[in-house]
Parts: sequence; structure tokens; C-alpha cells
Amino acid sequence: MGGPEIERLIGLLAKLPGLGPRSARRAALRLLQHPESRMLPLATALTEAARAVKPCRLCGNLDSRDPCSICDDPHRDHATICVVEGVGDLWALERAHVHRGIYHVLGGTLSALAGTRPEDLNLAPLLGRIEGDEVREVILALGATVDGATTAHWLTERLRPTGVTITRVAQGVPIGGALDVLDDGTLAAALRARRPF
Amino acid sequence: MGGPEIERLIGLLAKLPGLGPRSARRAALRLLQHPESRMLPLATALTEAARAVKPCRLCGNLDSRDPCSICDDPHRDHATICVVEGVGDLWALERAHVHRGIYHVLGGTLSALAGTRPEDLNLAPLLGRIEGDEVREVILALGATVDGATTAHWLTERLRPTGVTITRVAQGVPIGGALDVLDDGTLAAALRARRPF
Repeated sequence: MGGPEIERLIGLLAKLPGLGPRSARRAALRLLQHPESRMLPLATALTEAARAVKPCRLCGNLDSRDPCSICDDPHRDHATICVVEGVGDLWALERAHVHRGIYHVLGGTLSALAGTRPEDLNLAPLLGRIEGDEVREVILALGATVDGATTAHWLTERLRPTGVTITRVAQGVPIGGALDVLDDGTLAAALRARRPF
Repeated sequence: MGGPEIERLIGLLAKLPGLGPRSARRAALRLLQHPESRMLPLATALTEAARAVKPCRLCGNLDSRDPCSICDDPHRDHATICVVEGVGDLWALERAHVHRGIYHVLGGTLSALAGTRPEDLNLAPLLGRIEGDEVREVILALGATVDGATTAHWLTERLRPTGVTITRVAQGVPIGGALDVLDDGTLAAALRARRPF
């Protein structure tokens, strides 16, 4: 159906998250119909990004600068480090404009199921920063999952000797969320963490 | 957030059909995390496809061969031409393995709203084939829309002088479809085209 080049393109597009075989075909067709204005610019953007973007050696964020534009920003609060599992979490927090400190990307969570152990996580640069700099607070912004909780507890033990303040993001009812559709665990967490009104 | 290369990549991915800003970010992140195994192969596939794939000069299908692999296939029935609006329709019919003849891609339908006129459609190669070859039947496989019906009527008038047999695909209840969710137009078409049981 159109030769190996088209098949190969559809196959690679179908591997992207959010695209299945059907939408990959639609995307490939749209690209094929606009080779100059869409297909080649995307090819160039991919090549450029693959060349330029690297993990930041300080925090693990992906950036075309190293240290990344967040670690390198003098206007941010370098005494508050927000620890996240992945770069996608960092992007989400940045879009929400809720954190004025810097970040540390662990690159995963401890997971018995996935076989992720402490030595698989990006930890050394975080310890180095805490020991070397004037870090006051480490905010654990990990997912409210079993692996997220395991990792938060392990990290807390690991960082306790440094004397740094360790906090974690609140768990509860999401803003805009109705109570009757929430799972029991979220309801229990929201009740346990209730605050005076 | 990561530099201009990442922003540019997300922007281009978000323009693909089926991907919005959110899924474009997820796709970009997945690619960035696997530059060698995912990002560069996709860039290469795009460049290769842009270089190799062209519209078939006979039928308008997109292929890295010209004439395309369908027009060039001696095992297909070259006396039966199925006329479709776009390459996506051709792909759908090929996946269903329901047409053993060849195709002709119009590249659009007549549309007062979109301003598509007869001279905007890929028609000359179809007329040339009908006049030159031993074409017996032209099957109109156009969408059951106003524009599709307009185009079918116009094409029928246009091809009538050649004496070729002109048919069109049936309209009715889709296989697996329940009657109570169908629109009135489909129900009317299905009733009008009823056949003895």
C-alpha cells in the first residue's frame, strides 16, 4: 500500500503515545500530502532536538542547555528543590506556575514489580546539591501510588541525616472533582488530612 | 521549558490529526527520552518518505513507485476503476480487500462551501484511461455527503458520453449498526434501497 517508506512511517508514528494504527495512518497521510510544509519541518525538528536536547547534569531535566534553563535561572529559589519522578511531571508543574524553586528529576520510582532499585534512580546530584548548597526544603512531588509512596518513604530516610526539611504534596479531592466519583483511597486520604475551615 | 527545540517539536507534533497539545507533549517526551531508538529513526523515515513518495501519475495514489504498485499490478482487474475522493479512502478499501480492480483518486469533491470546482479535481487521467483502455466499469465510491452526491452526479454526466458502465457503492445500515442510533437520512436511504430477502 504505497511502498515500504509509507509503511515504515506509519509503523513509527503508531508507536507514539496517544496514536494507534488508525490515527497513525491519518497522521502519515496528512504529512505525505504536505511534504515540504509539514513532513520535512518535522524531520528537521526531530533531528535538531535529538542533537541539542540532553538531560541537565544537575537536575535531570531535558533541555538544550546544560545546566538547564531552570537550574541556571538566578531568579528562582535555589533553596527549595521539588523532587519529581519524570520530566513530564516537571512540565506539568511549570505549566501550572506553582513552584518558584528548582527541581530534581529522579527518573523513576522504586518498584518491586518493574525491578527499579535505589541505584537505578538519579540520586547523587540531589545529595550533592543538598550537601553543598544552601538547600532549605525538599518537596516530594511524587505520584499518590504505591511506588510513589514507597519512594517518598525511602527518600525521606535517605535525606534525614542531611537535616534538610522534607515535605510532600498534599493528597485529597482534586479541584473540580465530585466526591462520589472518587476512589476510597482518595476519600480516606482527604478525610485524614482534613483542616479547620 | 527545555529550550526552543523542544517547543518547536511539540508545536509540529500538535498539528498532526489526532494529537492535541497534551498528547503532543507526551509524544515529544517519549521521543526525547529515546533519541537514538525513536527520534532519529522517525526523522529518517520522514525524510525518506518525503523524498520517495509521489502521487501516481495514472491514478493519484501516493506511492514510492510511479505508476503506483496498484496501477502496475498485472494481477488486478484494469477494466474496473474505483473512484475515491482521497488516498485515505483508497487505503481503507485496500485494507478491507474488497476491490480487485484499480483506483482513481479525485483529490477532493465538488464543494460550493470549500470552493472546489471541476477544474480543481484530478480528472484528466481518468478520462484518458477510459478512452484509451478497455475500461468496463467505473465504481463511484464517494462519501454519502452532499458534496459526495453532487460530485457523483456531475461525474456521471461527465462520463456518460464514453459509454462506460457507472455504478456507485450502496448506502444503508452499516454492518453491526443498530437502527435506533442511525440518522433519518441513512434510514430513508436504507428503506428506499430495500431488496427482496
